[in-house]
Amino acid sequence: MSDSNTRNIQWQSGLVERSERAALNGHPGMTLWLTGLSGSGKSTLARLLERRLHQHKIRTFVLDGDNVRHGLNSDLGFTAEDRRENIRRVGEVARLMTEAGQVCIAAFISPYRADRDRVRNIHPAGLFHEIHVSCPLEHCEERDPKGLYAKARRGEIRNFTGIGAPYEPPESPELVLRTEQDSPEACITKILDYLGGHGVRVQTR
Amino acid sequence: MSDSNTRNIQWQSGLVERSERAALNGHPGMTLWLTGLSGSGKSTLARLLERRLHQHKIRTFVLDGDNVRHGLNSDLGFTAEDRRENIRRVGEVARLMTEAGQVCIAAFISPYRADRDRVRNIHPAGLFHEIHVSCPLEHCEERDPKGLYAKARRGEIRNFTGIGAPYEPPESPELVLRTEQDSPEACITKILDYLGGHGVRVQTR
Repeated sequence: MSDSNTRNIQWQSGLVERSERAALNGHPGMTLWLTGLSGSGKSTLARLLERRLHQHKIRTFVLDGDNVRHGLNSDLGFTAEDRRENIRRVGEVARLMTEAGQVCIAAFISPYRADRDRVRNIHPAGLFHEIHVSCPLEHCEERDPKGLYAKARRGEIRNFTGIGAPYEPPESPELVLRTEQDSPEACITKILDYLGGHGVRVQTR
Repeated sequence: MSDSNTRNIQWQSGLVERSERAALNGHPGMTLWLTGLSGSGKSTLARLLERRLHQHKIRTFVLDGDNVRHGLNSDLGFTAEDRRENIRRVGEVARLMTEAGQVCIAAFISPYRADRDRVRNIHPAGLFHEIHVSCPLEHCEERDPKGLYAKARRGEIRNFTGIGAPYEPPESPELVLRTEQDSPEACITKILDYLGGHGVRVQTR
């Protein structure tokens, strides 16, 4: 005798194909995964990008570390285990958004390579795009838009990425943005140029 | 000294308004929440509805109990606590899909009124539509498309809704479908007629 379990679960395939959703929208669904240190500019870029894509009739949606933690992941903290679960769940939602035909922009520190790779692996091939929002720690700490680095240095936040916990940069991301060199607008142009090669066409010049 | 916690989380509002997404799609985002016994016809209706809406250029996506349990909720079982968490998470995803502008069709037994009300309450007013897929238990058990009632009767599944666990019908759902009387096609027509009054216009006659 057991509780209902996965043996009793039957996979139901949808009646609408991925290609039909893409045809309706004029672009495929996909996940753009922005990873980088706190203060590197992920959220700023995600929101500028969402705006720009929307103006060009691209269906898009931002999943944001700060926002998701109010809802889906409000039960999770910042231990290593909770961070892993945070990224796992967000990855699953991004995958669902991708299946739904949206260009899902996920902006998360997501410091661990293994966690990001797991998210990549649950996506259909070619629909997960890892974008490293790269910025030296000292620049991020100088910006410190939320005052979190200062708190971490004072010992008020434990396990803060870059201070008390590691950040593992992507080894072969689809795109690298250098926010200490390039303006937000220049970074957005780079993303749009990249997307142009992947079925999301937006006039940038 | 504490871990990072919600005091350090700042809400980021999007740069694209809900009304702008609705203007782009030609319809608002919303959640259609199909609740009812196992075997009542929720998944069948959800998939027929998705197909029909898609044909009319409505952006739509099915969240399904069986499917979500392979991904987002693969860590959850069927205890009362896990069922509550299952519905909580699915409700949050439905809300995100709604915010993204999709007509999200969620098909879940979701036997507890309190759990469904919680999902309603996290949605923007008027964008959560509870649809009771009503069918007498004996009909559902007769259909038993997955053989689960038989297993539950043999004691192989504990806490199966309708047998070892309660189903609390909605007290004031937006719509009731009676699948023991009406054909799937007739039920779909009722939903489409209902949606016509809520900004999602589809020719049914």
